[in-house]
Amino acid sequence: MSRPPFVSVHIQSAAPGRRVAAADIVEAYAREIRAGRIPAGCRLPPVRVLERQLGLSKNTAQAAYDELAARGLLHGRPREGVFVAAADGVSPSPPPVAQPPLPALKPVPDMFASPPREGTLRLSSAFIDPELLPREALLDCFRSVLRQPGLEPFYDHQGHPPLRAAIAQRLGRRGMEVRPEQVILTVGSQQAIDIVSRSLTVGRMATEDPVYPYGRALLERNGIERVPLPLDPFAGIDLDAWEQIVARRRPSLLYAITSFQNPTGYSYSSHELAGLLALAQRHGLALLEDDWGSDMLPDSEYRPSLRLLGGANVLYMNSFTKKLWPALRIGYLVAPEPLVPTLVAAKRLSTLGSPPLLEATLAEFLDRGYYDTHLDRLQAELDQRYQACLTTLREVMPPEVRWTTPGGGPTLWLDLPRSVDLGRLRQALAARWIDIEDASVAFPDAGHLHGFRISYAYAPMADVRRALLAVAEELQGQLQQPGRPREARAIRA
Amino acid sequence: MSRPPFVSVHIQSAAPGRRVAAADIVEAYAREIRAGRIPAGCRLPPVRVLERQLGLSKNTAQAAYDELAARGLLHGRPREGVFVAAADGVSPSPPPVAQPPLPALKPVPDMFASPPREGTLRLSSAFIDPELLPREALLDCFRSVLRQPGLEPFYDHQGHPPLRAAIAQRLGRRGMEVRPEQVILTVGSQQAIDIVSRSLTVGRMATEDPVYPYGRALLERNGIERVPLPLDPFAGIDLDAWEQIVARRRPSLLYAITSFQNPTGYSYSSHELAGLLALAQRHGLALLEDDWGSDMLPDSEYRPSLRLLGGANVLYMNSFTKKLWPALRIGYLVAPEPLVPTLVAAKRLSTLGSPPLLEATLAEFLDRGYYDTHLDRLQAELDQRYQACLTTLREVMPPEVRWTTPGGGPTLWLDLPRSVDLGRLRQALAARWIDIEDASVAFPDAGHLHGFRISYAYAPMADVRRALLAVAEELQGQLQQPGRPREARAIRA
Repeated sequence: MSRPPFVSVHIQSAAPGRRVAAADIVEAYAREIRAGRIPAGCRLPPVRVLERQLGLSKNTAQAAYDELAARGLLHGRPREGVFVAAADGVSPSPPPVAQPPLPALKPVPDMFASPPREGTLRLSSAFIDPELLPREALLDCFRSVLRQPGLEPFYDHQGHPPLRAAIAQRLGRRGMEVRPEQVILTVGSQQAIDIVSRSLTVGRMATEDPVYPYGRALLERNGIERVPLPLDPFAGIDLDAWEQIVARRRPSLLYAITSFQNPTGYSYSSHELAGLLALAQRHGLALLEDDWGSDMLPDSEYRPSLRLLGGANVLYMNSFTKKLWPALRIGYLVAPEPLVPTLVAAKRLSTLGSPPLLEATLAEFLDRGYYDTHLDRLQAELDQRYQACLTTLREVMPPEVRWTTPGGGPTLWLDLPRSVDLGRLRQALAARWIDIEDASVAFPDAGHLHGFRISYAYAPMADVRRALLAVAEELQGQLQQPGRPREARAIRA
Repeated sequence: MSRPPFVSVHIQSAAPGRRVAAADIVEAYAREIRAGRIPAGCRLPPVRVLERQLGLSKNTAQAAYDELAARGLLHGRPREGVFVAAADGVSPSPPPVAQPPLPALKPVPDMFASPPREGTLRLSSAFIDPELLPREALLDCFRSVLRQPGLEPFYDHQGHPPLRAAIAQRLGRRGMEVRPEQVILTVGSQQAIDIVSRSLTVGRMATEDPVYPYGRALLERNGIERVPLPLDPFAGIDLDAWEQIVARRRPSLLYAITSFQNPTGYSYSSHELAGLLALAQRHGLALLEDDWGSDMLPDSEYRPSLRLLGGANVLYMNSFTKKLWPALRIGYLVAPEPLVPTLVAAKRLSTLGSPPLLEATLAEFLDRGYYDTHLDRLQAELDQRYQACLTTLREVMPPEVRWTTPGGGPTLWLDLPRSVDLGRLRQALAARWIDIEDASVAFPDAGHLHGFRISYAYAPMADVRRALLAVAEELQGQLQQPGRPREARAIRA
């Protein structure tokens, strides 16, 4: 398609409120052409287009063009159209148009800079194995939603009301008193972090260290000052140390992943949850709890959480992404009612809403009890994989390597001796089509841990085993060369 | 559900890497109870839960609980569970837990503060009449997508590739050279503005004045300094005035709605587009063009635009929200390739992705030619409504009132004499279940216009006519009382 666009000229009626007449068209084009505002070679709209856009009869537009041609201002070319004529009667191509510059944008966050090759096994991905996705049940719900006669084209900015009600009911079964009016549906849980952090009057947030890498990058992009609170999944949380940091740096909000923390896989104990609530009360620290992981452990309905113990002031978020169907992109935020209008406004400013067709499908999926059935199956499968993963680790890992035992769920943390060069390990594994997450993006500095996240949720167990064997082999190689000179490593880097 | 959650305690094997034994359980609970970290009255997980979470045989957990009970640390209550015992043997309720504070959040933007009552006719809404939505055709596409065997659970962060290809092809038919790699799908066009504005290294953006109100609120929330460029839909754009402002304040990017500008309904002429491109080149001003409206005018494939005239450096955005199905929430951004990674990263940080199931449905809808058929029907309907709207305006409006004649499309601007009190008019119409947009949010100060946007896209023509009659009546009332004392108005406000 190399035809240039039409010239667009404002044609107004001489008498306000009346229809445009042929004389108005002649007047408008003549004025624009004489002023040099539409240069020679520009293409005019065909009469049929002018007629449709101005609501005219065909004769009106044609008469105007005839008059302009008679005055030597237009020039018709058979089968090409009508063009502005040059003074010498020749119609050249339209003049070149200026090119604006590109805007200067911030750089791409490091974590997005070099994704693993297509086909690589992602040993740190906590996505659910596609084989476990409840396709048929979801399709049934989709069909049912599409057959409902009252399929509404519009949406509730806060989220599809039946899904908000179903979520509130589920949380009620876990002992949280939640009203549908407190539930805000989000485009994945990522949007929940986004709208909360953007709404803070004091943009200073505490996060765990190591921190969920996407959360870190998001907060940085949002201009939030971050206060890292060290988390050691082997020793647990040092609440005194946290309190000193909070007292000194006074963050306004703590973002905490209390079950299967990303990336450590750590889950807070009851004592730690209660201690954190007391600390928060003493220091005026608000809490945002990300509960993505607890559903993935059996009997999760009885797991303690900040929201469950600390009540409605705790902001709570969760999502269906990692448990059901990543492509749905449905998460939610449960907020105290006084905060809901501001958070919904932040959501509206960012994306206006999320697609209610999918929200309706998920509501149906919950109502029919399909989600409960699915979670049971998922938890049983993850339990098996967890045990198989532990068995493999015990079997193949060198004695200096340790790992956490989270009791099931999707992930654990593998920690390595300091002598292991993680960058070299990543590189060696990448060559074998295995990706381990670069945990350095999760630490504010050198890091008090030295390892990476292992997930047994995504890849089939045989693949995880193969990957763990490869990790062990590479580790053996590195650990058997403790005297390898630093210089040699520097040359490789 | 009033049962409290279980107590969660970290139980590790004494020998790293080995399974937990009964002695480990006894040791962990005894330590926590003696240290006062799990107070009397706390409920322990039933043996079956402990067994599942730790991968133990039933006997192991039961043996541990028996031992702890024998030591007087636990206390079983039939049909209730196992609880931490108090020193005196009585088990009280668990102690109260601290409540954290609420976070301090920014206020709700004014524009969201008082939505019109449910059932109100929204005379300024540019959403498409639900009667015009192509339900059956969309449902067909949905079904077809759901039946595809390779329905992937994951997503391309940039957007579903077949839809990006279909969009690139459509734009190609309008004369824009666009590759699918340049198209970024967004959650409505709002997300396009969000991710571009958040990615700017210099957060100073020029916008039209009056400005798209959601855009204004979003930029303010994003901390972007705004440079307003006055736009008069009756006189057109004063490019010299714009150039002076741009030279003085040096915005890094201009966000411009070049067809059916929101709220004025103004469309840029070819001369203005070319002039703006030249201005942008001279002053290093990058351009973001929002083209939501041009598709709604017949023969829109030949409408000029900044992207069409100025080439690939112009960032271009559009959406299907207002033309097809608001609930889809699918928009897109076309960016020069060097900028794509940063913009996709910004999208990932904000929402990770958009739901590919809907994107696949829309791709099917475009592929089958349904969108073309739909647009033809939509344009014809809007043309009719536009003419009917003009007829009504000519018939009923007082002579002091003027309006723009955009040639069709979804909206026009109604401008009123300065003596009209717009707040009073809004209030009077609200009492009659008619909502007109409060345009004051679109102006940085008093405003060089005095009116509001009228859309004939959303409500059936009979309703629009009824609403316009009501507006005219209220105006007659106000215009016949020119001497109404200011004080009286102040009392009403």
